[in-house]
Amino acid sequence: MSGVVTIGETMALLGAPNVGPLQHEHSLDLSHGGAESNVAVALARLGTEVTWIGKVGADPLGELIVRELRAEGVRVEAVRDSEAPTSLMIKEHRTGSGTQVYYYRRGNAGGRLRSDEIDLALVRGATLLHVTGISPALSETMRQTIFDAVTAASEAGVPISMDLNYRSKLWTREEAAAEYARLLPHIDIVFAGDDEAAIVVGEADDPLELAHRLIAAGAKHAVIKLGEHGAVAVIDGAEHRRDAVPVNPVDTVGAGDAFVGAFLAERLNGEDVATCLTTAVTAGALACLVRGDWQGSPRRSELGLLGGGDPVSR
Amino acid sequence: MSGVVTIGETMALLGAPNVGPLQHEHSLDLSHGGAESNVAVALARLGTEVTWIGKVGADPLGELIVRELRAEGVRVEAVRDSEAPTSLMIKEHRTGSGTQVYYYRRGNAGGRLRSDEIDLALVRGATLLHVTGISPALSETMRQTIFDAVTAASEAGVPISMDLNYRSKLWTREEAAAEYARLLPHIDIVFAGDDEAAIVVGEADDPLELAHRLIAAGAKHAVIKLGEHGAVAVIDGAEHRRDAVPVNPVDTVGAGDAFVGAFLAERLNGEDVATCLTTAVTAGALACLVRGDWQGSPRRSELGLLGGGDPVSR
Amino acid sequence: MSGVVTIGETMALLGAPNVGPLQHEHSLDLSHGGAESNVAVALARLGTEVTWIGKVGADPLGELIVRELRAEGVRVEAVRDSEAPTSLMIKEHRTGSGTQVYYYRRGNAGGRLRSDEIDLALVRGATLLHVTGISPALSETMRQTIFDAVTAASEAGVPISMDLNYRSKLWTREEAAAEYARLLPHIDIVFAGDDEAAIVVGEADDPLELAHRLIAAGAKHAVIKLGEHGAVAVIDGAEHRRDAVPVNPVDTVGAGDAFVGAFLAERLNGEDVATCLTTAVTAGALACLVRGDWQGSPRRSELGLLGGGDPVSR
Amino acid sequence: MSGVVTIGETMALLGAPNVGPLQHEHSLDLSHGGAESNVAVALARLGTEVTWIGKVGADPLGELIVRELRAEGVRVEAVRDSEAPTSLMIKEHRTGSGTQVYYYRRGNAGGRLRSDEIDLALVRGATLLHVTGISPALSETMRQTIFDAVTAASEAGVPISMDLNYRSKLWTREEAAAEYARLLPHIDIVFAGDDEAAIVVGEADDPLELAHRLIAAGAKHAVIKLGEHGAVAVIDGAEHRRDAVPVNPVDTVGAGDAFVGAFLAERLNGEDVATCLTTAVTAGALACLVRGDWQGSPRRSELGLLGGGDPVSR
Amino acid sequence: MSGVVTIGETMALLGAPNVGPLQHEHSLDLSHGGAESNVAVALARLGTEVTWIGKVGADPLGELIVRELRAEGVRVEAVRDSEAPTSLMIKEHRTGSGTQVYYYRRGNAGGRLRSDEIDLALVRGATLLHVTGISPALSETMRQTIFDAVTAASEAGVPISMDLNYRSKLWTREEAAAEYARLLPHIDIVFAGDDEAAIVVGEADDPLELAHRLIAAGAKHAVIKLGEHGAVAVIDGAEHRRDAVPVNPVDTVGAGDAFVGAFLAERLNGEDVATCLTTAVTAGALACLVRGDWQGSPRRSELGLLGGGDPVSR
Amino acid sequence: MSGVVTIGETMALLGAPNVGPLQHEHSLDLSHGGAESNVAVALARLGTEVTWIGKVGADPLGELIVRELRAEGVRVEAVRDSEAPTSLMIKEHRTGSGTQVYYYRRGNAGGRLRSDEIDLALVRGATLLHVTGISPALSETMRQTIFDAVTAASEAGVPISMDLNYRSKLWTREEAAAEYARLLPHIDIVFAGDDEAAIVVGEADDPLELAHRLIAAGAKHAVIKLGEHGAVAVIDGAEHRRDAVPVNPVDTVGAGDAFVGAFLAERLNGEDVATCLTTAVTAGALACLVRGDWQGSPRRSELGLLGGGDPVSR
Ligand SMILES: Nc1ncnc2c1ncn2[C@@H]1O[C@H](COP(=O)(O)OP(=O)(O)O)[C@@H](O)[C@H]1O
Ligand SMILES: Nc1ncnc2c1ncn2[C@@H]1O[C@H](COP(=O)(O)OP(=O)(O)O)[C@@H](O)[C@H]1O
Ligand SMILES: Nc1ncnc2c1ncn2[C@@H]1O[C@H](COP(=O)(O)OP(=O)(O)O)[C@@H](O)[C@H]1O
Ligand SMILES: Nc1ncnc2c1ncn2[C@@H]1O[C@H](COP(=O)(O)OP(=O)(O)O)[C@@H](O)[C@H]1O
Ligand SMILES: Nc1ncnc2c1ncn2[C@@H]1O[C@H](COP(=O)(O)OP(=O)(O)O)[C@@H](O)[C@H]1O
Ligand SMILES: Nc1ncnc2c1ncn2[C@@H]1O[C@H](COP(=O)(O)OP(=O)(O)O)[C@@H](O)[C@H]1O
Repeated sequence: MSGVVTIGETMALLGAPNVGPLQHEHSLDLSHGGAESNVAVALARLGTEVTWIGKVGADPLGELIVRELRAEGVRVEAVRDSEAPTSLMIKEHRTGSGTQVYYYRRGNAGGRLRSDEIDLALVRGATLLHVTGISPALSETMRQTIFDAVTAASEAGVPISMDLNYRSKLWTREEAAAEYARLLPHIDIVFAGDDEAAIVVGEADDPLELAHRLIAAGAKHAVIKLGEHGAVAVIDGAEHRRDAVPVNPVDTVGAGDAFVGAFLAERLNGEDVATCLTTAVTAGALACLVRGDWQGSPRRSELGLLGGGDPVSR
Repeated sequence: MSGVVTIGETMALLGAPNVGPLQHEHSLDLSHGGAESNVAVALARLGTEVTWIGKVGADPLGELIVRELRAEGVRVEAVRDSEAPTSLMIKEHRTGSGTQVYYYRRGNAGGRLRSDEIDLALVRGATLLHVTGISPALSETMRQTIFDAVTAASEAGVPISMDLNYRSKLWTREEAAAEYARLLPHIDIVFAGDDEAAIVVGEADDPLELAHRLIAAGAKHAVIKLGEHGAVAVIDGAEHRRDAVPVNPVDTVGAGDAFVGAFLAERLNGEDVATCLTTAVTAGALACLVRGDWQGSPRRSELGLLGGGDPVSR
Repeated sequence: MSGVVTIGETMALLGAPNVGPLQHEHSLDLSHGGAESNVAVALARLGTEVTWIGKVGADPLGELIVRELRAEGVRVEAVRDSEAPTSLMIKEHRTGSGTQVYYYRRGNAGGRLRSDEIDLALVRGATLLHVTGISPALSETMRQTIFDAVTAASEAGVPISMDLNYRSKLWTREEAAAEYARLLPHIDIVFAGDDEAAIVVGEADDPLELAHRLIAAGAKHAVIKLGEHGAVAVIDGAEHRRDAVPVNPVDTVGAGDAFVGAFLAERLNGEDVATCLTTAVTAGALACLVRGDWQGSPRRSELGLLGGGDPVSR
Repeated sequence: MSGVVTIGETMALLGAPNVGPLQHEHSLDLSHGGAESNVAVALARLGTEVTWIGKVGADPLGELIVRELRAEGVRVEAVRDSEAPTSLMIKEHRTGSGTQVYYYRRGNAGGRLRSDEIDLALVRGATLLHVTGISPALSETMRQTIFDAVTAASEAGVPISMDLNYRSKLWTREEAAAEYARLLPHIDIVFAGDDEAAIVVGEADDPLELAHRLIAAGAKHAVIKLGEHGAVAVIDGAEHRRDAVPVNPVDTVGAGDAFVGAFLAERLNGEDVATCLTTAVTAGALACLVRGDWQGSPRRSELGLLGGGDPVSR
Repeated sequence: MSGVVTIGETMALLGAPNVGPLQHEHSLDLSHGGAESNVAVALARLGTEVTWIGKVGADPLGELIVRELRAEGVRVEAVRDSEAPTSLMIKEHRTGSGTQVYYYRRGNAGGRLRSDEIDLALVRGATLLHVTGISPALSETMRQTIFDAVTAASEAGVPISMDLNYRSKLWTREEAAAEYARLLPHIDIVFAGDDEAAIVVGEADDPLELAHRLIAAGAKHAVIKLGEHGAVAVIDGAEHRRDAVPVNPVDTVGAGDAFVGAFLAERLNGEDVATCLTTAVTAGALACLVRGDWQGSPRRSELGLLGGGDPVSR
Repeated sequence: MSGVVTIGETMALLGAPNVGPLQHEHSLDLSHGGAESNVAVALARLGTEVTWIGKVGADPLGELIVRELRAEGVRVEAVRDSEAPTSLMIKEHRTGSGTQVYYYRRGNAGGRLRSDEIDLALVRGATLLHVTGISPALSETMRQTIFDAVTAASEAGVPISMDLNYRSKLWTREEAAAEYARLLPHIDIVFAGDDEAAIVVGEADDPLELAHRLIAAGAKHAVIKLGEHGAVAVIDGAEHRRDAVPVNPVDTVGAGDAFVGAFLAERLNGEDVATCLTTAVTAGALACLVRGDWQGSPRRSELGLLGGGDPVSR
């Protein structure tokens, strides 16, 4: 039994420790990130069994990714690429409120994962398969890999969740729309920001309208993430709205992944939609309070942290 | 002449440098803290002669405590414990607004100070003895030591101040209430937060009511600390209210100790209650602006720092 | 062709990395600063050719200043002083909102630059000469050097800009007023804070009134910098007002230099006053968002950074 | 199938980053260590399946230990202690060549592991059980736990290895000797330093003589570790001597654990004694070249690193 | 007049701050390196005018390279690549004596410099053109660019120096040999390690024999670098041998570049071969004493540093 | 009773954390140093009561010096200078084996200490007065201050020790020789390096000859420090030779001060010359093993650290 299975690219992350032009830095903080593995960490921290499948270089950054995901209790199925290095990204914070990401992923290991390198039995035996819209944008190879996994899951009756996760540095909105449209009919729950949903179903004033249109496009359920405005969802046809938990964010990258992981963890536990959304917006808020793409994701015992009380526990 | 004398446990303090789960840290900042020695630093910085009496291990962390307190001009009477290590605490900042303290004090040096290890002549020759409600919670030994010192001071006519400083990780509210009640009749000035006062005299809407009840319980004067809402006091029967100095706090731990030290320094200088409170709320505010339990306590020349003017002095 | 020429003292800068009493620091951050070279960096980043003339010690801190200014694309004409060390300043942030600067400049290299050590042909061939009111306050030598440069520029028909930049640790308001009055008749554009303008022309309610009075005192045009309230200017007799770009500043030191550099860059490009002011307030705002006296000054491609849009670019 | 199983205490490790009196440090490096888990890391890195069983506090340091061991591919069976904190140790390097360790382990979680908290089926299903002479010195509880595990393994025919690992801060040589004598008859392979072996079998000039005596005391095979002088072994009655691989050590703590892990990994792979010793002394040498108790342990691909060749690979 | 001109790839360099597996690092030190720009720094520090031509990404790492080379007084002619990021390399120090370099250069900016992006007039007006054997290994584009520059210099009578600098991660010995053979007839002075010379002219016991063979292969003069064994040269047919200056190296990467820059600086100054070699081995030794690929290169005033005398100057 | 009294300048010390050109550093380590206060620390650590008298600025660096000396148990009599800043020095380690010190002391506080600012009663009541040859080189003021103190001690029958401590950046050998000659007749024990002794008594092959000549020049006893060659002494006319304790030094600055403090501590304890020398060379060796001018000085319990035994104590 492989629990939730997710497939995607995880990159080493070199982040500027200070605000300002990156060329003034003397060292960069070393970590890792990737939408799919961030979701995996979020799931594992909430007690859900989860497997991440991906490809890394046969180098120390690949080893770093493997050991850090294992540290979080994620089962890691990492293919080692002896011909291309581990993908990496560099993060600059030119001003306190903006982040610029520079990628070294073209031709590198993360996007070279082939279907035949994956044990599809893991996918067929999963409780859920989670994919994102980043993978098909990386390379033809990866697009095929994801499609094969989705097909295998579909055929095995394994439900599939997908986060659209549009990345403008990887492809155009038109390219993305076509691929999203191809995948949506296979998807059980689709997650998207309102701007991302619009890529495939067009703009709309009410985010619930976007959710309905994503369902019309083939998904069974749809959740629209709205940042500091919370989220809306259409699940089994019923509409849900949920406010965000108000916080002073220090790093919003990864909030969506914490949200998705938390939503899925609760849903796989059989919780109702209200509980799924409550845990999801709490996880998203907590993720915003810590630097890093996944470090702030809550353990179950930490879900109550934002509830007030004496700020010093001693 | 030993000036003010204070007795208590001071611990090494290992603090997480970043916000987030402490298990992601690669180093911890090393410092020290203890309610009584924090008050001693606050007094010394304002020019009051002060002696700290306590017990530390025969190890580098004990040496660190001794040398840092001496650096601040505090006279240090430290007993070295060759059988137990220096107590320590670890501070995690899981979110930007909350702090969790983990203690390594059970059985360690700080709580093993015996009466017969103290030179009670220092206590009898003091201008004031300052104790807190933490010491009696540490161990039977320490409870007796504090009681003996309080008795010695009482008999010698030395005034005694006490800060209730309730610590829920050390004892229950009931245990604390009994001990507070035993000590209050010996106390000249008692300091307490409103929640702490309630432990021994019950809840009340108006903090001045709490002060009056503490006096009814045996103390001669009472000061209630109210965090960002300032403080109230009943001194010689007269009521006083004072607003806080508005600031953006970065670390509120130790604000109360700075407040108490400043209040006592002014009072021992013969200043009126208004001046005592002004200096106390100023010291409390300044303490909130610097990381650490005592580092932000003001020197006399720094009391005017919050008064506006050009923020850059050059 | 030497582009803009500026003459002044640049110092090594040792800054406390944390908020609090500097005596608790274990290391100080090493950088450099100086009003004139800060302006030079601001000009160079916006694409204006610029030369900085100054004197440094024959020591590593002098080398640091030279290499960092060269790094920014500033042409450096540095005289090496074999008899006095590079000037330096130490910055303490006792509270989060205040900065105290301690100088080691008396008798040191920066203020020992003699006229005969400068190639005045560079000044005569400049598109503009920029000076500040700091230099004449440093030493008799430097006062003469600046006066000789101003005279040379005047005679050669080179326009001169000046920032009053009053420094209370160097001279009294009366001394400053006399020197400003001596220089103003040679100045094309004068820049000043409202408090600084008042030193030489007296207090006024409306900053535009101050600008008019500076013109009456001899300058051709005048710009009054007003911090978070923006700036006003009287250029060719016409009045201009400009709001600041709202930001959460982390370090306001150097905002004025970024503003001045940006204003001059646009003016030398032949832009109209509105554009000069727009770029200037944008540069001033961006300078406030990064620690350091010049590090936050914008490159041309960065002028749009505060305009909103997705905070994460990926 | 649980692979090798090892049981013991792992502590958080706070190490001074510099040489000198620890009281001058401003931060301590955070890591973890424990003889048994160090051996587990050494085994896992060489590709042997291994499970570590131990007890940690319900606190971030406990979480750190769990996640770092998992990161290394060790299967972790950690009992969480809600009543005592994770054990910790502090390391000072007073001079470049000496290390002083200060423990906070008395009464803490690591020594409170009870037999009934362990799944003895894991032990019975192991390919090998590895224990050390540290555990019985920690507490009566732990002594019983180890004895029960050893008994269970014995009965199930699981071979047992033991490293004497004498710790003078925990018990006397006499106490240790008695316990070693009680355990040795159950042991398949015993590892010891020559000084440690002498505790139980008396001094001898030739370390091989010590090995023979350990066998006489009940063990089936014996390996004597000799630091920079390598190691000797008596296996199946045959004597073996092996020189160390010459290196410039930077931290010798943990060399023995790397040696033991490597020896066991090869032996469980069915390699001959010569290969076991070659890999063991190579692993011991590599462990000496990196700071930390286990970080330098080699992966299989790194065993050739000390063989010469171009020092820069590019 | 452009002084010495050199063309090549410079990369951002992210180096592990500690010895050990890189996956345990939490930050990487940020700097830059490239054989040609290292030589340029060595030349500039010794007072020789020098221009570096290369291609970097339109990103902060490209800006870092440009500003750091400018800081050193190198004239920088950098083409900005808007389609590929700045090349980078990662350095791991698995053991204290070995370094492993991981490259992110395939397809990145540094190897995409086209002939038509270079101002060949700079090459034709140079006092010397310096190239290395790395460039032709990077890409077909770069091979052509170097060939065109070499041809232009040849035709203009500009002498050309070349360092073979074999990189096994970029091409095979056979590929390299063919390209070296094509270039050698154009070369005035060739520099090579003995192992590198052997690639094109075969093994030989005496390095002077290698030098003679390189001359037979087309170069006019040849210098063989021998690491801690110094260097030999055949200049104008005459043989020279020079011992190294004995030092305890901390980082030998870049020693050869410091050697080459120093040799060329002296030769362009018209010094005799003995002086060229003396300065070269001194520069090589000094480069070994400082971490980084170029930071240890000496200024002229520092050439005497290894000559003994009181180690503390005060 | 003031114990040993010493008078001199103590400076803030900003040291480069790495080997290499200081202009590449991004921060400097902050500490303090001064020959006289280094000796005071050495004395205090060995249990001798000691008072340091000096002048510092009314600034944070002055405060740092005061608090760090107090931390070490030195009684501090510091005059605050409101007109000049605390002296400072900057340390560069251009190569691993050399240190360059840059001073900011001319005109600064340390050299402005006047006789009338000192309580000469402290000097007259001392067990010993310790001075160095640095003070008279700082300024006329300081030369007079030292002379007045020496005279006062002489008259009161207080023995005086002096370390010649020649500083070539402050005065010439001839100036120094004259001042040394003036002071020697007042000195009980003079300490000097062999090169320093030669300044006043001329070169000699045997250091014992230098000691005899210093005695002929007026001192009662003389000790010659010989770095890694140990020391010789002529005490009460008897000759003594002592080898150094062999170590791998990491920072030899301050070794002499540790030696002097240790020698004096033992002598004031009434120990014989052999013991004085044993403790002195041990202290000197230990001082070499830690970075910093005084941090490595031993406490009494640490004198045995170099005696061998298990390098790990646990
Ligand atoms: N500034 C914020 N304040 C509070 N919650 C936030 C904030 N930003 C994000 N969240 C929470 O995280 C969830 C996902 O964030 P969002 O920004 O919509 O996703 P993404 O990271 O995919 O763009 C939101 O639905 C919300 O619950
Ligand atoms: N957020 C704050 N803003 C301004 N002043 C504060 C703030 N927190 C504490 N203070 C000042 O410090 C004093 C003591 O703080 P308080 O939090 O009441 O004590 P304690 O640390 O004992 O809980 C208050 O009376 C107030 O004057
Ligand atoms: N807090 C702020 N918020 C926004 N812009 C600011 C702020 N402070 C300064 N600026 C901008 O920088 C310009 C110069 O700043 P100012 O503080 O007036 O100069 P100076 O540094 O010379 O005192 C201002 O005119 C404004 O445009
Ligand atoms: N200084 C050293 N040089 C080379 N190898 C060493 C050194 N120290 C330890 N080793 C290797 O590690 C092994 C175990 O080290 P040892 O010090 O004997 O164990 P322990 O850490 O248990 O005391 C040795 O047998 C040897 O092979
Ligand atoms: N370990 C060393 N000790 C002293 N000098 C050295 C050392 N390594 C290099 N050098 C000096 O630097 C020069 C170039 O070094 P080398 O290693 O031969 O070049 P490369 O870096 O190109 O491999 C040598 O000729 C020698 O003078
Ligand atoms: N390299 C060294 N190795 C061992 N001991 C040393 C070393 N350097 C200094 N010492 C000890 O410190 C003492 C004083 O050092 P020295 O260098 O002579 O003094 P100074 O610092 O005044 O120049 C020496 O006599 C010796 O005992």
